[in-house]
Amino acid sequence: MIRLVPSILALAAGCWSAAAAADTLVDNIQGVTIDEDGRIDNFTGLVIGDDGRIREVLDRRDKRPRDIDFQVDGDGRFVIPGMIDSHLHVMGLGFAALTLDLSDTNSLEEAQARIADYAAANPGRRWIIGRGWNQVKWGLDRFPTAAELDAAVADRPVWLERVDGHAGWANSEAMRLAGVGAATADPAGGRIDRVAGTREPAGVFVDAATELVASKVPVPRPGDRDLALRKAQDILLRMGVTAVADMGTTIDDWQSYRRAGDGGWLKVRIMAYASGTNAMELIGGPAPSPWLYRDKLRLNGVKIYLDGALGSRGAWLKQPYADDPGNTGLPLLTGSQLRNLMSRAALDRFQVAVHAIGDAANAEVLAAVEELSDTYAGDRRWRIEHAQIVDPADIAKFGEHGIVASMQPVHQTSDRLMAEARLDSARLEGAYAWRSIADAGATLVFGSDAPVESPDPFAGLAAAFTRRDADGQPFAGWHPEEAVSRERALSAFTSDGAFAGFAEGRFGRLVEGEWADFVMIDRDPLLATPDELRAARVLETWVGGERYYSAAEARESAETRAQAR
Amino acid sequence: MIRLVPSILALAAGCWSAAAAADTLVDNIQGVTIDEDGRIDNFTGLVIGDDGRIREVLDRRDKRPRDIDFQVDGDGRFVIPGMIDSHLHVMGLGFAALTLDLSDTNSLEEAQARIADYAAANPGRRWIIGRGWNQVKWGLDRFPTAAELDAAVADRPVWLERVDGHAGWANSEAMRLAGVGAATADPAGGRIDRVAGTREPAGVFVDAATELVASKVPVPRPGDRDLALRKAQDILLRMGVTAVADMGTTIDDWQSYRRAGDGGWLKVRIMAYASGTNAMELIGGPAPSPWLYRDKLRLNGVKIYLDGALGSRGAWLKQPYADDPGNTGLPLLTGSQLRNLMSRAALDRFQVAVHAIGDAANAEVLAAVEELSDTYAGDRRWRIEHAQIVDPADIAKFGEHGIVASMQPVHQTSDRLMAEARLDSARLEGAYAWRSIADAGATLVFGSDAPVESPDPFAGLAAAFTRRDADGQPFAGWHPEEAVSRERALSAFTSDGAFAGFAEGRFGRLVEGEWADFVMIDRDPLLATPDELRAARVLETWVGGERYYSAAEARESAETRAQAR
Repeated sequence: MIRLVPSILALAAGCWSAAAAADTLVDNIQGVTIDEDGRIDNFTGLVIGDDGRIREVLDRRDKRPRDIDFQVDGDGRFVIPGMIDSHLHVMGLGFAALTLDLSDTNSLEEAQARIADYAAANPGRRWIIGRGWNQVKWGLDRFPTAAELDAAVADRPVWLERVDGHAGWANSEAMRLAGVGAATADPAGGRIDRVAGTREPAGVFVDAATELVASKVPVPRPGDRDLALRKAQDILLRMGVTAVADMGTTIDDWQSYRRAGDGGWLKVRIMAYASGTNAMELIGGPAPSPWLYRDKLRLNGVKIYLDGALGSRGAWLKQPYADDPGNTGLPLLTGSQLRNLMSRAALDRFQVAVHAIGDAANAEVLAAVEELSDTYAGDRRWRIEHAQIVDPADIAKFGEHGIVASMQPVHQTSDRLMAEARLDSARLEGAYAWRSIADAGATLVFGSDAPVESPDPFAGLAAAFTRRDADGQPFAGWHPEEAVSRERALSAFTSDGAFAGFAEGRFGRLVEGEWADFVMIDRDPLLATPDELRAARVLETWVGGERYYSAAEARESAETRAQAR
Repeated sequence: MIRLVPSILALAAGCWSAAAAADTLVDNIQGVTIDEDGRIDNFTGLVIGDDGRIREVLDRRDKRPRDIDFQVDGDGRFVIPGMIDSHLHVMGLGFAALTLDLSDTNSLEEAQARIADYAAANPGRRWIIGRGWNQVKWGLDRFPTAAELDAAVADRPVWLERVDGHAGWANSEAMRLAGVGAATADPAGGRIDRVAGTREPAGVFVDAATELVASKVPVPRPGDRDLALRKAQDILLRMGVTAVADMGTTIDDWQSYRRAGDGGWLKVRIMAYASGTNAMELIGGPAPSPWLYRDKLRLNGVKIYLDGALGSRGAWLKQPYADDPGNTGLPLLTGSQLRNLMSRAALDRFQVAVHAIGDAANAEVLAAVEELSDTYAGDRRWRIEHAQIVDPADIAKFGEHGIVASMQPVHQTSDRLMAEARLDSARLEGAYAWRSIADAGATLVFGSDAPVESPDPFAGLAAAFTRRDADGQPFAGWHPEEAVSRERALSAFTSDGAFAGFAEGRFGRLVEGEWADFVMIDRDPLLATPDELRAARVLETWVGGERYYSAAEARESAETRAQAR
């Protein structure tokens, strides 16, 4: 039985009262961490200092210290470092949990019914906002239309983001309020889906064109933002994620993170990458921020979008899409613009993270890093986010200039059928090429791109070493030569993730001196079958020596509430 | 001789290391503070705890504690609470110190020469930026012109703010870049000065019209902002100011304040009032911020401008200006807009501070407070900033609803001749009416409106109880019945200033439990003659138990630097 640890450290206004802290021994565990050489280290006990850092890592033979204030009996449970998601959207995840989520709809009809129900259940909401639809998942070979959305809700504006965030679906009322019509031109870097044979907007807007409607949606109130942040943190901690790289932090997002830190409710560590260089300058000022709230928050650098997404055919390819001749996707920046933005960031030592999905985009950012590395020398850790479709001839370049490849295993399993439709077999050789990119010498880190996918890191781990989805498909794995080992996958979700964010030595490893960020699960992550791993239950999640999530407590609370009704 | 106190508390990342702190006894001083009844309390020693708060206040007969780590011999010097400036512009003060300052020019010709010299000395600056000009001080009965500015600098754009911040002077190149010409209409709430008999812009832009040119000026880099903040703090601490109300904080300003707090170099306490409700929402979110960095920073509420300034005839009057028939000034908001903004703030418990200079503006905000007080009950401390020209019939209303009148004594002494030109004698009865407004029951607090005036609080104190300027004019005081007592003046610059910012109990009084914010000066503030008081030398300035300014050390540093050359 796990003796409960009293909730300790009251974090008031960023200053931590030493008097209330205590040394804690978490014993009788089967612990795993990755050492600096990428090898597994095992241990059976952790001593957490009164400052929330690991004081000692104990193996079976080590004497247990006596000056302990609290003891937790791990009951033989498995302990891994807190999982680090190196690419997600914190506020997007939170808002998705608070708004209409269509990601589990399997047909257009099902989505229409869900939307209509949601609208009926929320009569006071002026706009119906939601996300997560995916026409590929619906078996639709085209985008849905405004008319189809009107069939669900016609009396109020409706605006629904596609699952990848790169397209939006509006009803007629929303388009009317946005003032878009046949005369509206496609904006640079975007496309308005139009009724065949006409210029009439059909309902869906791709990439930069989404702004035409999105700009009319009422912005969330600050209280809503804070609620979304609380939601996001609950979801992440429940899934065993203790640190994230937030890809596209706005000043509004940052203010919520700071309120959380000031108020003592920032639990998950957030490595923030600002939404463009203006936000980077506003948030960080003359340089990246210091680590704040005891390494819970830092503005590391900037997130730059070079192209769109594969599903919406916005990813920038060297050759046209296999299923859309003549269309090579949408570069969102010229080569000069890209280099200017990267330079602006690097000039003040902000870290650069560039979204590049198509092979043309990846080639472009690799070339830009090559060119800028003379001027901006030193330990830059240029990040390429997604690196999803790479020309096999370009893979070797990932090993240069200390590049970090930030990839999302569950994208491969979710997208494989779509990818096979978009690309011919030669190009699939460089698709989701985790192994090759890592072997080329890049630092490989993993994430989920939540809320585009669920932030469940165990699904990511299982996909990473099997190249099979939750249904076990395809049986031999999809391009199984690109699978990585379990150890590398775990490393990419822990210590390498910390390194990618300049956080090595602070968290990511269960070693003396680092923060006590760990997850207690109910099975061996290195021996469980893929299915068993996908079904792993997170029992406890600790960050900085504080237990922020306990499945047992969550269950008890739910039971108490049920009884109270 | 004053034994030096070692610099103690290392404020790292907002968290304060207890091990380095120490108890300090500041003894052998002639201390003064104002108690809760507005009366003088004297003391001869202060014990500062290791947390930076006052542990004990000692009078002559009290035993001195023994458990003291450091002792300062005050040598009979006078000690007052740190002065609180209840209305200034922190970043404006800082930038003014870094850019061209024309506030001490006495003629147009002198200003032109100064501008030309500055431009020649700064060949790399694309725009010549400055502030502080005052055509009244130049003896000019009109605004200066673009042509006169071209005579100083014609090859680069020049943009110079009038001393009160309510007008700007552009040269032809600046107007060209701004695209303003004869076809440009006066924007709402603003006025373009035009060449007589034509529509051609003459060079000066008043109130909202300043945006036409100001919007083209390159924004400061974040590093420049931080430098301006450092400068502002140095100036304030040197003058004995330990806390301020920042009137019009932007998100960029707030970010600099936070960087200072995070980095341990926020020395002066800043009670921030956001620049409008959008900034208020962005900075504070769903509510005023908590007190941050040990009561050094808080987003209290919002600053709203209802009218302009008297000098530029933007102040909103009930009857026309005596020297400009037909012109009653410029209300910047309709009554509905004002009430909407005030409601928006009060809804989320943000404090409201409304700039009202003219008697019509004051009447309007008094009426708005009256109407909103039913809906927004409780301890609101509605602030009226300046309250400069008040219809005597309206003065009694200042005593209702807990209104705070935030006024600037040095405005009266600087502006009296201009005020006499703008207004007839009946209206002068209610001008800078500190005594009447306080007697009506308002909480009276004082400030400087720096950089419009110098933030020197001793000039403010001297003006407050004499109604005479630095030259002793007019001899009997200007409308001397409106002078306040020395005690009230000191209170308005200390404890009442804290109350006005919801900081009572934290700072503003030298009593047990409050922060050790105090100033050591070389003369008795309650007995010195006005001239002696104006010449008071600040010897040391302490905030939160840290000595941030020492005249002796400053002198030694300057001598060392001089010897090094």
